[in-house]
Amino acid sequence: MTNLITQKDISSLLIDNTEKVFSVMLGMQVSPGEAVQHQSIERADGNVVSLVGFVGDWVGTGSVCCNSDMACRISSRMLMAEYTAVNEEVLDAVGEITNMIIGNFKDSAEPLLGPLGLSTPTVIYGRNVRARNLNGQLWTTVPFDCEGGLVEVKICLGPCQGPNKNSNTGVLVAES
Amino acid sequence: MTNLITQKDISSLLIDNTEKVFSVMLGMQVSPGEAVQHQSIERADGNVVSLVGFVGDWVGTGSVCCNSDMACRISSRMLMAEYTAVNEEVLDAVGEITNMIIGNFKDSAEPLLGPLGLSTPTVIYGRNVRARNLNGQLWTTVPFDCEGGLVEVKICLGPCQGPNKNSNTGVLVAES
Repeated sequence: MTNLITQKDISSLLIDNTEKVFSVMLGMQVSPGEAVQHQSIERADGNVVSLVGFVGDWVGTGSVCCNSDMACRISSRMLMAEYTAVNEEVLDAVGEITNMIIGNFKDSAEPLLGPLGLSTPTVIYGRNVRARNLNGQLWTTVPFDCEGGLVEVKICLGPCQGPNKNSNTGVLVAES
Repeated sequence: MTNLITQKDISSLLIDNTEKVFSVMLGMQVSPGEAVQHQSIERADGNVVSLVGFVGDWVGTGSVCCNSDMACRISSRMLMAEYTAVNEEVLDAVGEITNMIIGNFKDSAEPLLGPLGLSTPTVIYGRNVRARNLNGQLWTTVPFDCEGGLVEVKICLGPCQGPNKNSNTGVLVAES
């Protein structure tokens, strides 16, 4: 990582924006734990992992992870209805929260990193889910205690290798 | 979807680029089946789902899905070593193949859609994995028979809602 943005900047922006979104959108208080770095997202207890990509001079991915119970609690607060099992509305609610947190993170990071675009969130639901970035690019994770449950917010971010706007792949495949 | 790109264009570009990447990079032949559209990726037999985001005037996600056995076969061909279980090298190999296929798709789609940037692939491994895009945005899927196994290549794509470059979120969260 270059000195444009430090690990501390990333965790500080994640904490700030996660606290705001949970407070304003859900009326829920969160308490950040210590930020950590690791290669893979591992969710042994199952369950909901949302992912959204960034693109600009820097590229990467943002993620929100929690178990089914916390996903239902977030959805119940957001949609003002009771959810006890993960369904499509719950997956969409987690996707929306991700869009807000990572979108606000992106806006806050742009003064440091230049303009960034955000892709659409994809929300994964499964058992023993593991998520690895290509070549083991590190995730910076901030764990939050949210009314007794755990929500993890993650970013991986690095300078774009090569001219993304024209060709990101660096792979020449012969035209037929 | 506007008339800039049709479902048929998408499946045709996916077929063309998947055939090329499998042939050139892996020396493997693939036969496309009929393209389908659906809301969720469902992988009951487990296993490997890679995702990479697009950003531009259009935004979306590309994905390559296969079971563990096929992921190992792809990796064995790519890395010229034998893989019998999914490990980090296998996840990276599937991520690289995704980067190539979706990167080439992006290059081919840019004349229709304008410049697109690609985020870094994230590769998911788990049981009963389900992947849903926010608000149920449809995936266009082309299934490929690859030497007796199944590889699915997927795209979801839609016009960017709002000024992505400045703020994608459309969410106002009060500054503290």
